[in-house]
This record gives sequence, structure tokens and C-alpha cells, in this order.
Amino acid sequence: MREAFEGRETALFALQARFGTQFSRGAALREQHGHGEGYHLSHEPDAVLFAESTEDVSAALALCHEHSLPVVAFGGGTSLEGQVNALEGGISLDLSRMASIIEVNAADLDCRVQAGVTRQALNLHLRDEGLFFPVDPGGEATIGGMCATRASGTAAVRYGTIRENVLGMTVVLADGRVTQLGGRTRKSATGYDLAHLMIGSEGTLGIVTEIQLRLQGIPEVTAAAICQFETLGGCVESAIQIMQMGIPIARMELLDDVQMEACILYSRLEGYRALPTMFFEVSGGPDSVNEQISAIEGLCQDNGGADFLWSTRDDERAALWKARHAVYWACLAYRQGHIGISTDAIVPISALTAMILGAKQDIDASGLVAPIVGHIGDGNFHTVMLVPPGEAGLERARALDHKLVARALSLGGSASGEHGIGLAKKAFMGAEHDPVALDIMRAIKATLDPRNILNPGKLLPEP
Amino acid sequence: MREAFEGRETALFALQARFGTQFSRGAALREQHGHGEGYHLSHEPDAVLFAESTEDVSAALALCHEHSLPVVAFGGGTSLEGQVNALEGGISLDLSRMASIIEVNAADLDCRVQAGVTRQALNLHLRDEGLFFPVDPGGEATIGGMCATRASGTAAVRYGTIRENVLGMTVVLADGRVTQLGGRTRKSATGYDLAHLMIGSEGTLGIVTEIQLRLQGIPEVTAAAICQFETLGGCVESAIQIMQMGIPIARMELLDDVQMEACILYSRLEGYRALPTMFFEVSGGPDSVNEQISAIEGLCQDNGGADFLWSTRDDERAALWKARHAVYWACLAYRQGHIGISTDAIVPISALTAMILGAKQDIDASGLVAPIVGHIGDGNFHTVMLVPPGEAGLERARALDHKLVARALSLGGSASGEHGIGLAKKAFMGAEHDPVALDIMRAIKATLDPRNILNPGKLLPEP
Repeated sequence: MREAFEGRETALFALQARFGTQFSRGAALREQHGHGEGYHLSHEPDAVLFAESTEDVSAALALCHEHSLPVVAFGGGTSLEGQVNALEGGISLDLSRMASIIEVNAADLDCRVQAGVTRQALNLHLRDEGLFFPVDPGGEATIGGMCATRASGTAAVRYGTIRENVLGMTVVLADGRVTQLGGRTRKSATGYDLAHLMIGSEGTLGIVTEIQLRLQGIPEVTAAAICQFETLGGCVESAIQIMQMGIPIARMELLDDVQMEACILYSRLEGYRALPTMFFEVSGGPDSVNEQISAIEGLCQDNGGADFLWSTRDDERAALWKARHAVYWACLAYRQGHIGISTDAIVPISALTAMILGAKQDIDASGLVAPIVGHIGDGNFHTVMLVPPGEAGLERARALDHKLVARALSLGGSASGEHGIGLAKKAFMGAEHDPVALDIMRAIKATLDPRNILNPGKLLPEP
Repeated sequence: MREAFEGRETALFALQARFGTQFSRGAALREQHGHGEGYHLSHEPDAVLFAESTEDVSAALALCHEHSLPVVAFGGGTSLEGQVNALEGGISLDLSRMASIIEVNAADLDCRVQAGVTRQALNLHLRDEGLFFPVDPGGEATIGGMCATRASGTAAVRYGTIRENVLGMTVVLADGRVTQLGGRTRKSATGYDLAHLMIGSEGTLGIVTEIQLRLQGIPEVTAAAICQFETLGGCVESAIQIMQMGIPIARMELLDDVQMEACILYSRLEGYRALPTMFFEVSGGPDSVNEQISAIEGLCQDNGGADFLWSTRDDERAALWKARHAVYWACLAYRQGHIGISTDAIVPISALTAMILGAKQDIDASGLVAPIVGHIGDGNFHTVMLVPPGEAGLERARALDHKLVARALSLGGSASGEHGIGLAKKAFMGAEHDPVALDIMRAIKATLDPRNILNPGKLLPEP
């Protein structure tokens, strides 16, 4: 049980006294911090606290722990499953001011950043050094938030998700204690992998304040192309063969016929048809790139793909990927006046044809328009469900989302490839994980956060 | 406190009654299961139990939990830091009979194996499918043991360690409950990453009985070469530049002048000199391989490397890598009558020159002969300390080992890149991890194994 109102007020006053202008109970800030970018009811915190250092986070958590006041970490506010909603009030601990890039070690291909650095800011900073950070979720996400939700993106097929790109981190525990997890080496075999326990824990086990990241060298040449297929199966079969051949594909995205139609209209992609389509990116030395291109072309042609146009020019590639990254806006333009709600699920790649054909049946049965886009090399796919604003539309969208996730699980998949659980997908935790695994998760949560102040009500379903 | 002798006997009788001929108290088996391949005193279990199924492991652990009888999981017996020693007696739970390859999914590039499958057996099985499993620690290790110790090897620079190559697993908890952790998808964002908590936990949190592994397609062309350098710094600088350029190097190994001398003598490597030397392997399509070769040659020549001889012929490559894999035997032949004790530490690659030059000073000061070999792309290196048999020699080796690890830690490194902690490196846990991190590890251990029956006395130092 939470402390009564007076206890909560005492805690908030103590925080205000400690943090002064970093602390606010203003209505606008509370509203802004009550939700992410998903379509869930807002849950406002009692106050917003802007942390400016690990010490701030530590002091805040020590006070909240003392008073059993809930704390929800807040980064870019871009999460999609209700991760930042303050279900039980308390404070939203905003880390966006912790935006320093602490160090870049070019020789070691690593860097250390504060949790509030966005991936865009990091890549801008790195560009002059010939380096980049490859994890690219859609929004203006912070690195801390990406750790919390185990984020991923279009480059995961080559470079892995945030999980494979974090070396170490500074974490503040529920009671305010500060610890360093992991380190700077590329691998280590010394004790329990606590950094990876934190990654994907959605702020329920600790709050990440600094992260040591792996970086990559910018390849000499990068080429991109679009290929259109007669059938969805041809796309999936091509993707499977590309992976089996060990082609180090940099990006490989699938757009279904409906998504492609929306993109053609929105991004004025001339000369393309509303067919299942793949976007490719390959990179490396020039000979390697040419070799990859011809291998991919050959495979795709064998599977009914045609009309390749490769480009190594920055502006042409940018235009192509701009169209890919604009799918959400293309969808909104495709059904004006509707809102767009993104789904997320993942299956083994061999099940992807069955999954997507089944998803299309589910979408048709729902009567909704919902274009499909997928990180096909990973087996991860999204739809943007287009519904009229209002509760009735949301209800239909939720029903479709649940159907898609249930289908993914029945095909050996997972309820989320990259958006996480938050509030919206707790119902699937019991379907995906057995009771023993959930017991372990609950036991670890109780051990690390005995007063249940860290993002209470998220990720773990009630027993 | 453990139960008194009678209690332990009761437990052992119960296990014998349940498991019959799978259970033995024979002296030879107990001796064989009292140690790995490191040079530590043997600690024999009271009995050896051969599990043949997950159900066996579950039944055994339920009984051991009931009676608070210690259980040490045993795979190939190849660990180097005393991981399998039965410090407090109890049973050695041998999983080597669980050696089935349950399924291989070529389209998904994954497979499911029982914990007792060795990496060699798996790769033999996969070869006809054009697939391979890339994690290659030195010994005839089992996949279960590799998970337990967070194993790695020469291909980690390209494909990652066992951590990056496990998708999911079946785990039996201390009380006998069975759970599935992770899954089959290439990524997932649904809950705490318990599979990765198990990886590297050295049998102290649960016993892994089945593993879902990622596989790789065998590249079209593979080429290998040796390059000799005037200076160690030239090797390290070349390695850093190769990583920065994003060359997808398959293997990159460093042998110091002493190790090279031992290898020249033992493996009859004609035409080579006792100089710092790098072994390279590149793979991919033929054009990509040629391009990688010329890039690597150019970089190495700029750093004082010379005398490349690339080979794409299987037999020539095999001879080259046989020499690399025979370093341990080359060392033993180099100082006949001595025993060879392997060290293990890792630093950020930019610190590798300082680390190895310092290590050479430490080795000289110790008066021991200790050739150095390293997975240079990772910053991970080993020495084989050659000492006369007997306690005095072991003592000198231990002192040198500690000095090398302390030096690695002072350079921002880790006490182990791939051999783990076991018994021998517990002393370094407190130097590498802060007290809060160790508290979390102990709390998780107490939560998952409240009676401390799983490999007691390992990995975690006493508070």
C-alpha cells in the first residue's frame, strides 16, 4: 500500500526543497510526462523532476524510497506501450537534461554518454570521427530509454539491438545506491550479467544514468536499392537465402502492398507499383558492395523480384530511406483524419510468410486499414493500424493488435521485437513466459525494489 | 550449515534409489569429476550422477534441494578456473550423456541442442547443411558448459561470444522447477533477460539442460594468412585500424615473439622468425575476400608488417590454424617437463600494447617462461605460464597470474575475457565490481538458490 496523501505530500515537499527549480508540479509538465507516443490513457505524475546528474538521480531515489513514492524514468517520451505513464502517480524523473557525450574512444570504437543523449545527437557528434552508433528506433529516443525498452531498429540485422551494443552502464538502484555494471571491454566472463538484466527492464529494476556504447566505423561505400516482388513469399524466401549465404546485409526492410501504395502516394516514389517490396542497404568496400549487390539481385530474381535500382549517392539513398522512415506519415496521409497505432511482434523468419499472410486475414476481418512494414531479416514486423479517433476505434485497434500478437506467439514468436511491454502488453507476458520464469522475474523485482517504487504496475503481470 | 553426515547419506541413498546405475560413488569417477583442466587442488564430489534428460536434472535437484545437498554441474570438464570442483562435496551432475542435437532449422539459422553436445559434435553435424556454430573455446567443451562460463574463442571478433549466440534455453532451478528462458526469435523485448542472467553464472543460479543456438552459413571463401611485425605496437595498431575500417575480419590472433618461437619449433613453421606475429582469417564472397586481403595487407605494411602469404586452400589453412590451436602443446614442448597454466584477462584494445609490454615485464620479473597469445580484436589475451610441477612452481604461477590480472584491471580491463571466475579468480571480483554490484549478485543468488546448493563457494566472494 502506498502512503496516505499526507505522506506523499511530505515526500514531494522534501523533493522540492532538495531540487528547487528542477522540480515542478505544473500542470503542463505533468500532462506532458503522463504518456509516451502510444495511444493509451494518460497517467500523470504528481510532479516532474529534471535530473542533471547521477547524484541527482541517487538523491531523488533515496528520498522516494524513504517515502515509498513511485518514480517513473522519462527520456525522450517516445515509448509506444505506455512505459512512461505514471500509473500510481509519484514523480516522473526526466533525464533529458543529462545529455552530455562524456567521452569517445575512437581506437576502442566505444563511447560513454549520459542517459539523456539522443541517438541523433550522438551520431551528429560522431560523424566527423568516421564513426556511428547503429541502433535506430524510429523516434527521437534517448540512449537511456533505448536501454530501458531494449530498443532495436533497421540496422539490427547487421549490428544487433541495443543489447549487443552496450558494454557497461551506471545504474541507480531503488534505494539510491549507485553501481557500475559491465565495463569497457568487448566481452567479460566475471560474474552475473547485470547490465543485460537492466536492459529491457523498463525502469522497474533501476535507473540507468550513463552508458558505455560500442560504436562502428562508417563503411567506405553504402548502397541502397528497392526491389518489388510478385508475392510476399518471394520476399521472405529471398531474405532467408540472403541470411543463409552470410551476406552482411546492412538493412533489409519489407513493405507490403498496402504500405507500398501509401508510400508511393506520400513520398512520390515514381515508377513503383503497390506490390510487396524490399528495401536493401549494403555496405563495405567497393568490391564487397558490388559482390553483395549481384548476389542479392540474383537471389531476388530467382524469387520473382525485379526492377532493382541501386544507388550509392548520398542524396538518392537518403531519399529512399526517407520514404522508408516516413511510413508512419504515409499511413496517416493514406487515411486522413485517422490516427495511426503501431503494432509490434516477431517470429522466426521461416514463419514470416505464414505470419504476414495470416496478419492480412486478421486485418481484413477487422475491417481496418493497416499497412505492414517489417525488419524482415529479424522476423520483426509492424503494422500501422489506422482508426478514427475515439474509444470505439481504439477498441478495434486493440482487438486487432491482440490477435496479431496471439498469432505470432502461436508461430513460436514473441509479443514484442522492440517496443517492449510497458502497460499495453502485460497481458501477453503469461502467454509467452511460463509461470516459473515469471516467478523469477517477480522475485528479482522484489529483491531489487522491495518497496515497488520503480515504475510500478509495468512489465510484470499481477500473479 | 550443511546437514550432518547422516543427512547427507540419506540424500545420497535417495538419489541412488531414484537413479540406479546412473548414480555412482566409485572412486575413479569421483576423482575424474573433482577438477577441470586447470591446476587447482581437486575437490571430489561424494557421488557422480549422469543425467539423461531434463526430467532427470529436475528430479535430482528437487531431491538435493530437499536435503540441502550441493550440486555441481559437469559437462566436458574443460573449465580452467576450478568451476567444476566439488568444494563442499555433494554430487557432480554430469550432463555429458545429454548429447542430442534436437533440431536444426536451416531457414532460421538456429538449432536446439542438449547441454552435453560438444561444439565439435555440433559442427560435424552441421557441415553437410552448409552451416556452422562459431563459438570455439579451446577444449572439447559442451554447449552447456560454454553457457555456464560465458565462453568465447577465436571467432568472437566476428560472431560474438556464446552470449550473442544463444536465443533461449531450458533451465532447471535449484528446487527442481523447469523453465524456458528466451525463445527462438532473433530478438525480443518482453521482460527481464533471464537467459543472459544464466549465461556466465557458472551453475550457481540454475542448470542449463537445452539451448537454442544461432548458427551461421559457411562463407563461400575463407582465406588465412600470417604476418610478422617488427614491434608488438605494430600488431596492435594494425588491429585497431582493421576494426575501425569495419573490415569483417573472421579471426585475428596475436602471438608474441616467445610464443612464435615455440610454434616455429613445434609446428615446423618454416620461413618464419621469432617476432610478434598475427594470424588472420577473412571470409565472404571471393571479391570481398580479395578486398579484405588487400586492405589488411596495406594497413599491416604501414605498421611494419611483412611477408604475407594468403591461402584459401583448406589444407593450407588447416595447417596454419593447427599451429595456432597447438600453442598450448608448443609451449609444453618449449620447456619439457614443465606444466602449462593458462592465464586470461582482457583490456580495451587501445590499452593492449601497454598491457602486453607490461605483461612481458611482469613475466621477466617472475623468472618464468610465459608465451603470450591473444584474441587481439577483442583485447583478450592469454599467457601459458610454464612452471615445474609442484607447489613452489604453482605458487609462482599464481603470483604472476594475479599480477597480470591486476595490471589488466588498472588499464580499465576485466579479470577474465572468457575463462570465468570459478574458484581461482574470486579474489578479483571485489577489485572489478563495486560492493553494490556484488550485493545485487548475492541477492539474486540467494533468491534463486536459497539453500545455496548450486555450485557453492564459486564465483561470488564471501561478503
